Amino acid sequence: MKYLPPALETLMGELARLPGIGRRGAERMALHLLEAPADQASALAASIETLRREVRACGSCGNWTEGETCPICSDIGRANGQLCVVERPSDLWAFEQSGAYGGRYHVLGGTLSPLAGVTAEDLRIAQLERRIGEEAISEVILATNASVDGDATAHYLAARLAPLGVQTTRIAQGVPLGGHLDYADPGTLRLALEGRRPLQG
Amino acid sequence: MKYLPPALETLMGELARLPGIGRRGAERMALHLLEAPADQASALAASIETLRREVRACGSCGNWTEGETCPICSDIGRANGQLCVVERPSDLWAFEQSGAYGGRYHVLGGTLSPLAGVTAEDLRIAQLERRIGEEAISEVILATNASVDGDATAHYLAARLAPLGVQTTRIAQGVPLGGHLDYADPGTLRLALEGRRPLQG
Repeated sequence: MKYLPPALETLMGELARLPGIGRRGAERMALHLLEAPADQASALAASIETLRREVRACGSCGNWTEGETCPICSDIGRANGQLCVVERPSDLWAFEQSGAYGGRYHVLGGTLSPLAGVTAEDLRIAQLERRIGEEAISEVILATNASVDGDATAHYLAARLAPLGVQTTRIAQGVPLGGHLDYADPGTLRLALEGRRPLQG
Repeated sequence: MKYLPPALETLMGELARLPGIGRRGAERMALHLLEAPADQASALAASIETLRREVRACGSCGNWTEGETCPICSDIGRANGQLCVVERPSDLWAFEQSGAYGGRYHVLGGTLSPLAGVTAEDLRIAQLERRIGEEAISEVILATNASVDGDATAHYLAARLAPLGVQTTRIAQGVPLGGHLDYADPGTLRLALEGRRPLQG
């Protein structure tokens, strides 16, 4: 499109590589960055550079952080003997936002996926085994996604951690809060039935 | 949210200022920029800086361009005596994409809007009058938006340009291509009726 300045085309191409951004969205964003006050555009550019310079993986749990260890691993109040194992930092943030969990986390960095060539050595499992001993962990909560790979990884971890004498649990699967049964898919309904619990009258 | 690194929070805040980007989209984009190869993140940051450094308004028509004059104003083949007046560069790009127009453009920079304090002096109208003489323009096509402000601006321009002896036309309003009559709003149907033309049998 020769009517677009090359620098605008370049930026639109870079923006379109971001998740959830199509050609039209990239055009609107690029045009906004062109017409906005200059300091807004530089602030965005600078914050991208700062992000890549300052943020790294926590040496202990693998969460993204700016120091050596993340605030959760540094907080002695979070050392309650529980370890919640998640696939990615964004899963950890979802738990933190819910306020439903008070222990520490361990980020695997993905799931086992033989087809994609991801083996146990590619995940942070050796570090997990080490932490179980060092931090006197009594329960490992397996909170990988409710997907085929997430389930397979949870089962693999349960088997691998068994010799360590730690209790392994898996988060519950079923109908989500506010979910209507007639909109739930058959797989969710089956899991909800299988996971039923006695209700005290 | 103390579980997010401050640099990530900052970037999310900057991304959320872009049009069409909410909190959730900003989080996904920021996380992508953290986990993508480093050169992809720097390429985006650099292309924002390049955009603001290289792109300016064309001295003649007001389109965004990297040189002094844009490719359309520099193209002698586009000097056909027609001038298409649009509100913004993105309107110009829409016409170029359609391939329906072969003349030159003039970007007003907005519409008259007494409520928002936009007067004729804030738009590129003096430059338009100058170009009509200098470029021997015979027809000015008023292609402002089909909004209240766009229509009012078109009528104002038609009156203001009348003494210059140039023909002023307004782009047609009516049912869009592929549009179904029973989905068209009453205003559009009224305009389509008013603008009816004889059809040769």
